[in-house]
Amino acid sequence: MKLSIIVIGDEILIGQVTDTNSGFISRRLGPMGWETRRVLTIGDDADEICAAIRQCMADSDLVITTGGLGPTKDDITKSVMLGIFGGEMRRGEDVVVNIRNVFAIRGLKMNPLTEGQAMVPSSCRVIQNRLGTAPIMWFERDGKVLIAMPGVPFETEGMMTRAVESEISRHFTPDVKVAHRVLMVAGVTESALAQRLEDFENSLPAGLHLAYLPTPGLIRLRLDGISAGNCDIDEVLDSCYSRLCREVGDNVMFDGDATPAEIALHYARRRGLKIATAESCTGGNIAHRITEIAGCSDVYVGGVVSYANDVKVNLLGVNLADIENHGAVSREVVLAMAEGVARITGADCSVATSGVAGPGGGSDEKPVGTVWTAVHTPAGTEAFLRHYPGNRQRVIDRASTEALLELAKALKG
Amino acid sequence: MKLSIIVIGDEILIGQVTDTNSGFISRRLGPMGWETRRVLTIGDDADEICAAIRQCMADSDLVITTGGLGPTKDDITKSVMLGIFGGEMRRGEDVVVNIRNVFAIRGLKMNPLTEGQAMVPSSCRVIQNRLGTAPIMWFERDGKVLIAMPGVPFETEGMMTRAVESEISRHFTPDVKVAHRVLMVAGVTESALAQRLEDFENSLPAGLHLAYLPTPGLIRLRLDGISAGNCDIDEVLDSCYSRLCREVGDNVMFDGDATPAEIALHYARRRGLKIATAESCTGGNIAHRITEIAGCSDVYVGGVVSYANDVKVNLLGVNLADIENHGAVSREVVLAMAEGVARITGADCSVATSGVAGPGGGSDEKPVGTVWTAVHTPAGTEAFLRHYPGNRQRVIDRASTEALLELAKALKG
Repeated sequence: MKLSIIVIGDEILIGQVTDTNSGFISRRLGPMGWETRRVLTIGDDADEICAAIRQCMADSDLVITTGGLGPTKDDITKSVMLGIFGGEMRRGEDVVVNIRNVFAIRGLKMNPLTEGQAMVPSSCRVIQNRLGTAPIMWFERDGKVLIAMPGVPFETEGMMTRAVESEISRHFTPDVKVAHRVLMVAGVTESALAQRLEDFENSLPAGLHLAYLPTPGLIRLRLDGISAGNCDIDEVLDSCYSRLCREVGDNVMFDGDATPAEIALHYARRRGLKIATAESCTGGNIAHRITEIAGCSDVYVGGVVSYANDVKVNLLGVNLADIENHGAVSREVVLAMAEGVARITGADCSVATSGVAGPGGGSDEKPVGTVWTAVHTPAGTEAFLRHYPGNRQRVIDRASTEALLELAKALKG
Repeated sequence: MKLSIIVIGDEILIGQVTDTNSGFISRRLGPMGWETRRVLTIGDDADEICAAIRQCMADSDLVITTGGLGPTKDDITKSVMLGIFGGEMRRGEDVVVNIRNVFAIRGLKMNPLTEGQAMVPSSCRVIQNRLGTAPIMWFERDGKVLIAMPGVPFETEGMMTRAVESEISRHFTPDVKVAHRVLMVAGVTESALAQRLEDFENSLPAGLHLAYLPTPGLIRLRLDGISAGNCDIDEVLDSCYSRLCREVGDNVMFDGDATPAEIALHYARRRGLKIATAESCTGGNIAHRITEIAGCSDVYVGGVVSYANDVKVNLLGVNLADIENHGAVSREVVLAMAEGVARITGADCSVATSGVAGPGGGSDEKPVGTVWTAVHTPAGTEAFLRHYPGNRQRVIDRASTEALLELAKALKG
């Protein structure tokens, strides 16, 4: 079954806000047999919204719109729906009750603009939005369905999982099954890996497809399968996936889909070791990447963001002489940071970073992108020098990723 | 002039990767007079790519595609371009040289798959991609232009600013000017603000439009202007923007577009104060939000991620008795964390967080989403209790935002 998603909002079109709703919806509905054929992002313009809905309704079984339902003037989606699906605007008394409840939870009072949100086309069925004031609207025509969702990710995500997915399941009967397996690969380039896997790819049975998703330091291999009728797609996928793991061999970093932080936590947990972090140029990003993972507290104890040199010396016990002689971005300093943070936190292992994230602070000897990383484990402490291209954000991002992957490799053994 | 962006890639369509290229391109080309009319995301499917290009070429002056140009099998964009724009595949000797250079910089050798990337349709002009191996292709037809860019954000972003933007400027002469002003507003709901600004909005001159972009804790008001001919859009915008600031009054948080971290840094810098962070539930995210801003080191000295209680006690000097009597998520502990981190780092002010990010760890008394935040300034230390809805990521995100905004408010005075 085909799904199209229409993302409505000038703020997304001009690049001020990044759409994450469409990806969330695809990830949730894919395993239910829905193939997303397009995501169409348009502005808050009645003609564009109308044209987009007509285009998507023509070739998709289900169309989901997100955004364009707020209380303010720039939202015009509802009147476009009225134009397409007919009926008249009515005041939804159940919607009023829901809005009052949402406002009461937030400790706020309704005002006339919010009252306007209770007006809905009579041609739709309302799914109450327990997480916000914009009602979710379900329209039907010629056996096809259009669902209008709010634009706030928290509301869209929450209401998809709480109510909308089950309504979709009830209405449609899936005729195909879609599934995939993911393998994380490190230490090889995308093109060298593709060469090695050429025979494997050519021998894949019908309905199976291998996709390469390279990220810095890590290639995500995704084996997609789609089946109609009685074929057990999971069984076929499992068998091909085992063969894929053998072909990739030593370059397998992780069996499944995982972030570098999840991989590092996995290998530390398996060995019963505690982790700490000491960050200069990555400025807390490594700690953040670890702590955004639920359940990390059995492995991660904490760390220090030693941005100023005083903090490196006073908190982590780095020698001031080392900073003066070699600079803060040096093997000596980053080794002392890694060992220092393990000592003061009582952790068994640690990562430390010190580098020039830019745009300022570079020199001929240590240009922007120069990063020293140290990994400390019970087996010892090692330091690595890297030069990352790109802007500040990219240097921070890549240095964080590589520090976590180096730690994971050291712990994987 | 109208711009359409086509994002190609199964990985984006199924929601495994979030597209950021389209937003980047819109943000760069908007100020040059380009109005993005749609972003169309499709899979690696020849028919879909072909249909998307025809649709966008029909109603846009410029079409930019991103993705679908890698060396591996799932990339078929190039042959679709050949089908639409004609010509034959030829080996671009200049492209070979560029690929060799890119590989040499990375210390890698070319392989047959990468050689394939040097094949380009004879109907295009190549813009050398200095940051990767996939050539950027410029096609023209009936006065319209299609530019095929790679999918890797680093390459797309780097090559847009280095080469593609100036090629676009040279080829097109802008006939309209687009500009906007942004105001950050806090302490008022979107609908209450909209009510207050109703008269202001109704009195805006033609070509001006006010958009509300609510984010947790902060509403971004964007005043958009578009002008044809001789009208000085900047002058009109400035005048309306001043009036907008007066209408918003005390709720103005920042004049311009800025993140909570940028706003906090701004007010601390203005007063010559140093900032430190002590984070439990936000796990380094506040530090990361601060340190991703270039030039933060004149204000931010560093901090501690005190995830384990031992780290709170041993590094930050929190009383073990306070943790035992009140729990780690308590006013007493978060106040001690804020004061402790200022003391050990020598900072003048600080923020601290301790909460239950979930999904585990909640109790009847302190459910998931309970977060204590403390703000320390030379004027004293204050603590706030909040309950955030949503999942772990959202709790971390909102707690980080609110901690930075509370610090900014305390420093703004």
